[in-house]
Amino acid sequence: MAARFDFTITATDGAARSGVIQTPRGEIRTPAFMPVGTAGTVKAMLPESVRATGADVVLGNTYHLMLRPGAERIARLGGLHRFMNWERPILTDSGGFQVMSLAELRKLSEEGVRFKSHIDGATHQLTPESSMEIQRLLGSDIVMAFDECTPYPADEATARASMELSMRWAARSRAAFGERPGRALFGIQQGSIFCDLRAESAARLSEIGFDGYALGGLAVGEGQEVMFEVLDYAPAMLPADRPRYLMGVGKPDDIVGAVQRGVDMMDCVLPTRSGRTGQGWTRRGQVNLRNARHRDDPRPLDSDCACPACRGYSRAYLHHTVRAGEMIGAMLLTWHNLHYFQDLMQGLRDAIAAGRLEGFVQEFEAMREAGDIEPL
Amino acid sequence: MAARFDFTITATDGAARSGVIQTPRGEIRTPAFMPVGTAGTVKAMLPESVRATGADVVLGNTYHLMLRPGAERIARLGGLHRFMNWERPILTDSGGFQVMSLAELRKLSEEGVRFKSHIDGATHQLTPESSMEIQRLLGSDIVMAFDECTPYPADEATARASMELSMRWAARSRAAFGERPGRALFGIQQGSIFCDLRAESAARLSEIGFDGYALGGLAVGEGQEVMFEVLDYAPAMLPADRPRYLMGVGKPDDIVGAVQRGVDMMDCVLPTRSGRTGQGWTRRGQVNLRNARHRDDPRPLDSDCACPACRGYSRAYLHHTVRAGEMIGAMLLTWHNLHYFQDLMQGLRDAIAAGRLEGFVQEFEAMREAGDIEPL
Repeated sequence: MAARFDFTITATDGAARSGVIQTPRGEIRTPAFMPVGTAGTVKAMLPESVRATGADVVLGNTYHLMLRPGAERIARLGGLHRFMNWERPILTDSGGFQVMSLAELRKLSEEGVRFKSHIDGATHQLTPESSMEIQRLLGSDIVMAFDECTPYPADEATARASMELSMRWAARSRAAFGERPGRALFGIQQGSIFCDLRAESAARLSEIGFDGYALGGLAVGEGQEVMFEVLDYAPAMLPADRPRYLMGVGKPDDIVGAVQRGVDMMDCVLPTRSGRTGQGWTRRGQVNLRNARHRDDPRPLDSDCACPACRGYSRAYLHHTVRAGEMIGAMLLTWHNLHYFQDLMQGLRDAIAAGRLEGFVQEFEAMREAGDIEPL
Repeated sequence: MAARFDFTITATDGAARSGVIQTPRGEIRTPAFMPVGTAGTVKAMLPESVRATGADVVLGNTYHLMLRPGAERIARLGGLHRFMNWERPILTDSGGFQVMSLAELRKLSEEGVRFKSHIDGATHQLTPESSMEIQRLLGSDIVMAFDECTPYPADEATARASMELSMRWAARSRAAFGERPGRALFGIQQGSIFCDLRAESAARLSEIGFDGYALGGLAVGEGQEVMFEVLDYAPAMLPADRPRYLMGVGKPDDIVGAVQRGVDMMDCVLPTRSGRTGQGWTRRGQVNLRNARHRDDPRPLDSDCACPACRGYSRAYLHHTVRAGEMIGAMLLTWHNLHYFQDLMQGLRDAIAAGRLEGFVQEFEAMREAGDIEPL
């Protein structure tokens, strides 16, 4: 294991890159998809099952964990890795996004955000300094700078003010992070959909200096077309030798498009959340297992998939358990979805390494257009 | 694997027996505890995890499965084993108990029970003949005769009438079962808490002839003392060379007392149901993980337990996930509880084989009296 955090690009194909992030807790193969373990668990999964899907790293949510069970408590219990029984790398967000979307009575100032917990109504404050301290208590391997995720749509003046606030917070995050051997701090680019603001944000982050750089303020309602327009220029503004992390993305076709545009890391609740509502994601698109057309179908969700759900169960069984509200339906579909997402990442990594990303993307699109049921 | 159903007693200790039930789908070590897989799933568990706890056989509920997804559908899909991905033996109940406790507008007659589904209100009928047919469609390895579970308390006249109805239904079940190579049919003794009725029921069942015999009408509110009084005489009334199955039992101390009194098989929702409400069962008794006293406790639920919950997680983590409503809390506690129940059965089997059951029971009771927290 590497004693320190490092990133090596091993292949490129157009703007796309594949590589390895080294951390003391293990390697992260890029492009990487990070399952979301909001409250100390990737929902409906045991951590060894998360690993079995191919995940190298999971994401923890600072906002949720600071409120329950509390960062100090997790620190006393040996840190988040031991707490949730996941010994590999953990990336934690800064809490900035979720405090603005989930907390009550939130008040944003230059200092930070004051808010009431959505769980028990208690008053808390998140600032660049407190976010760095909470992520330290959690034992995070990849710490995110505290920022404001600029809402969409925003006019240019609003987007500029928000970006400038995030850049001041980025500098305070960097100072508060200090020296943490083996741990990384990522800065977050803002600027909404404005190219000059993105460039200015990237320049200010590079000047501060981070171990990696995230693309923030995307996947917030702007739609894939607009997001891809930003991704056509924004990643290249960030230091080429550092990992680029697109936050909150996405659907499989979002992921493919982002990788084509030079993104190295992503996270999204989609595979886990949709697994709990009866949705399966496959090479052939999205399948709603609640639909009655599956109730007599002896075929697996995807006959070419090697996950436990597809190896052991019929669509009819998944339909039955999802409709009956049985936990195993959510467990199997979550596993399948995470497996498929990791399988997609492996396919992208292999294609980049082989210099055949364009062909891979063509096959990916053709398979989705063929429809979700394979011919009998 | 045995081509047919058979039972071999390999050791006895007082009234207690240990042995092996052979079936074409594998052996069942007795005394056996059968996890309940009501609707085609042992709730919150994957079948390979159920097996990993040491379970040789699971129970399926005819009432639930006939209503959803339907026995004909399961038969078309290859039977219950394939449907739920459990290739080992399955015992199915007759539906008689659950139709009286769950169905709406139920009407009992000599013919059987007419009722409305609690799921969609559709009218159905369960009779000895239809119960045998449904259990055949499910592919059950151990089929239970259709009976009326005599409610408790019942006066002797009521208990007699109910028992006699069940005996007529037992004869009809036997006739309708016909010949099913490798499959077994169990008769069910009734008679409430009346010794002469239990004797009469046993005699009538023996005359009909079954592959095994269940003790019905117990664990229905009479309490452990009264149940043990019946178990002091009722099992010995049944053919000694056939398995004896005590239905719906029970708590660990119920299980121990039943095994001491000659019971070979049991089933209960307790370990699975209580696992979903934050209750852990250990050698030291029941532990409510919802209780705030666990929130900072770094110790496992039971430091001597080899289950994944106890090997990987603290009481603090179980407390957190149970309180946060995270599925992993239910998954881990269910696994632990099933592991503990199977561990208890293995301990009982080993003690009977070694002729030291009395010592085992003394240790079992001493450990429970010591309290649920081990000394720091």
